[in-house]
Amino acid sequence: MLQRGRFITLEGGEGVGKSTNLEWVARWLSARGVEVVRTREPGGTPRAEAMRELLLSPKAEEPLDADAELLLIFAARAQHLAQKIRPALERGAWVLCDRFTDATFAYQGGGRGIDTARIAELERFVQRGLEPDLTLLLDMPVETAQQRLQGRLNASGEGRDRFEQEHGAFFEAVRRSYLARAAAAPQRVAVIDANAPLATVQARLTACLETRVSEWL
Amino acid sequence: MLQRGRFITLEGGEGVGKSTNLEWVARWLSARGVEVVRTREPGGTPRAEAMRELLLSPKAEEPLDADAELLLIFAARAQHLAQKIRPALERGAWVLCDRFTDATFAYQGGGRGIDTARIAELERFVQRGLEPDLTLLLDMPVETAQQRLQGRLNASGEGRDRFEQEHGAFFEAVRRSYLARAAAAPQRVAVIDANAPLATVQARLTACLETRVSEWL
Repeated sequence: MLQRGRFITLEGGEGVGKSTNLEWVARWLSARGVEVVRTREPGGTPRAEAMRELLLSPKAEEPLDADAELLLIFAARAQHLAQKIRPALERGAWVLCDRFTDATFAYQGGGRGIDTARIAELERFVQRGLEPDLTLLLDMPVETAQQRLQGRLNASGEGRDRFEQEHGAFFEAVRRSYLARAAAAPQRVAVIDANAPLATVQARLTACLETRVSEWL
Repeated sequence: MLQRGRFITLEGGEGVGKSTNLEWVARWLSARGVEVVRTREPGGTPRAEAMRELLLSPKAEEPLDADAELLLIFAARAQHLAQKIRPALERGAWVLCDRFTDATFAYQGGGRGIDTARIAELERFVQRGLEPDLTLLLDMPVETAQQRLQGRLNASGEGRDRFEQEHGAFFEAVRRSYLARAAAAPQRVAVIDANAPLATVQARLTACLETRVSEWL
């Protein structure tokens, strides 16, 4: 019988190095013969990416209501689960996703102050029990992460999206929420100290994968 | 103290004459000194209209998941309520809306077969007790409505959107659900037989408004 694939998520605030480290994790898995589907949230399919655009675009003349934002995130998640994540897991591929529902608890719960019971209600509604097998939370002080983000934006010439435009207190709340989620689910969430040179962070990731993932291979 | 405005919705399937009759109801109210805010769902604000686009656009290569469709509808509704409907009602204006949550029960519940308990869960989540004071349900046989819709599309040269592309059994289920919603809430929903010349339908609407709305003026 075909074995269901594993679902691994990478989490963390702006500037902590998710993209680079996602690549690292994907290569670690591929080298061990795993078929890896890399994806991201919000988004991951053309329709879900179109919803992402609505979420991220700054539009000064009409603020996005907090409930609307939350429902739009879960609409994109439902689409992503139905069209990409569940089919991949069912055929035995592993899914490696840049952000998932922990980010919703951190950004919309911690950052925006939405009651986490309301987020949990939509989580049950959409996920019907599916959750990541492993979540890697990249953590570093907000000030350091913000400097890294600014460096990247300066280099690329991109502007800040609706979330990147938030201020320090917002990001502090996001980080606190992430760490609280990790503390509440230590069997699922591994916190990786990302406030170090890249090689050190990757050594930490490797150690974590060897401990947590090797037994699934 | 400022009196809260009234919230009136117009419902019915494709081709029953909602636009023309919405105009009629708006004029009836305006003539009685009411400030009327006319709007529609899904949509009603620029951000909610952008969500409407995602809902209606046919995209053969990626079906829209039923849960994603439902959440997207309620995301647009949350935005519409926060940015337009609630502020209008609070300042004393009346809101006249082309479709609202009854349409979700009819199309996503009846048409798509989504469990109505799931729709009711999102209704509570988003509306927090707000519902229309009066709903005018325009009803006619599906075959007649479909002929009228086709005539309009032929005249305008427009294509059918994702919902208009559905088939007869879908629209029969939509109609049955609308009528069941009306039967379950007769104090709120008035069924208007729209299978008649326009002048007759408008006389029926006027009689209904005189009975149901005059006391609020």
